[in-house]
Amino acid sequence: MTNNLSILSLLVRNEPAVLTRISSLIARRGFNIDSLAVGETHDRSISRMTITFRGDEYVKDQIVKQISKLHDVIKAELMDVTEMVARELLLVKVEAKNGQRGEIVQAAQVFGANIIELSQESLTLEMSGEVSKVTEFIEFLKPYGIAELCRTGTTALGKGQYILN
Amino acid sequence: MTNNLSILSLLVRNEPAVLTRISSLIARRGFNIDSLAVGETHDRSISRMTITFRGDEYVKDQIVKQISKLHDVIKAELMDVTEMVARELLLVKVEAKNGQRGEIVQAAQVFGANIIELSQESLTLEMSGEVSKVTEFIEFLKPYGIAELCRTGTTALGKGQYILN
Repeated sequence: MTNNLSILSLLVRNEPAVLTRISSLIARRGFNIDSLAVGETHDRSISRMTITFRGDEYVKDQIVKQISKLHDVIKAELMDVTEMVARELLLVKVEAKNGQRGEIVQAAQVFGANIIELSQESLTLEMSGEVSKVTEFIEFLKPYGIAELCRTGTTALGKGQYILN
Repeated sequence: MTNNLSILSLLVRNEPAVLTRISSLIARRGFNIDSLAVGETHDRSISRMTITFRGDEYVKDQIVKQISKLHDVIKAELMDVTEMVARELLLVKVEAKNGQRGEIVQAAQVFGANIIELSQESLTLEMSGEVSKVTEFIEFLKPYGIAELCRTGTTALGKGQYILN
């Protein structure tokens, strides 16, 4: 029984109850959703959802089959992690004390983060990148004092010719 | 009765059923969730959720009150849109034909997007920014042919001293 992280991509019709149906189906199996990101596609009636969760392989396949059968789900597919690009967005507010800002600004450059707000007491940064890189950046910032942060969770597209539809 | 877009920020305990409870509460009111992003905070037992939805002011306040009372919800607050920084992440695959790539690469620079994958048939770009900017970029790319895209939905932090906790 393996417990790898899985990335599930979904195309769903933009209806009020669809998120509830999907999340309850996953929760009923006792799986915890690590992250979930959902937004409209270029067709406003259709949303794309990316869910990351952990669980054993057999149950995962069952979940995907059951989700595929749900009303308002157009397509559900587990992503092949070797054949995709996955990114996450982070907003983080750091309690930057005088004398520490330079270090944080330098690190932001190394990690490809942007400073989007600056006040006397804090510094707010934005970074998008692979999940592991985002996690690394958070670990780097912890000693300075993280006031608050939000992560969007993973969003992913298949490489090259692969298209979900 | 106004129907403005609202941004709701939540701190929740990382439990399987919490997302179902929240989404079903919103759906039962007939509100459609425009976007939802949820990921762990720097405390792994706590997730932060950002939900955007439309609805009239009175019902919105009721929803926030009801969500606040839910088991596993630590904090729920409507963001003041004039006092926050909000960002969204986009991944988009464009069917870039020969002779069109130059234009797309130039536009990517203008919009602050990065090219993260290139094949003979397509170009995959990553962009993070304000929701309106992301929408503009998608509109710009449409004539080239969008193969697929995913948006994380809005994630937001209060400005300056404001902290959700």
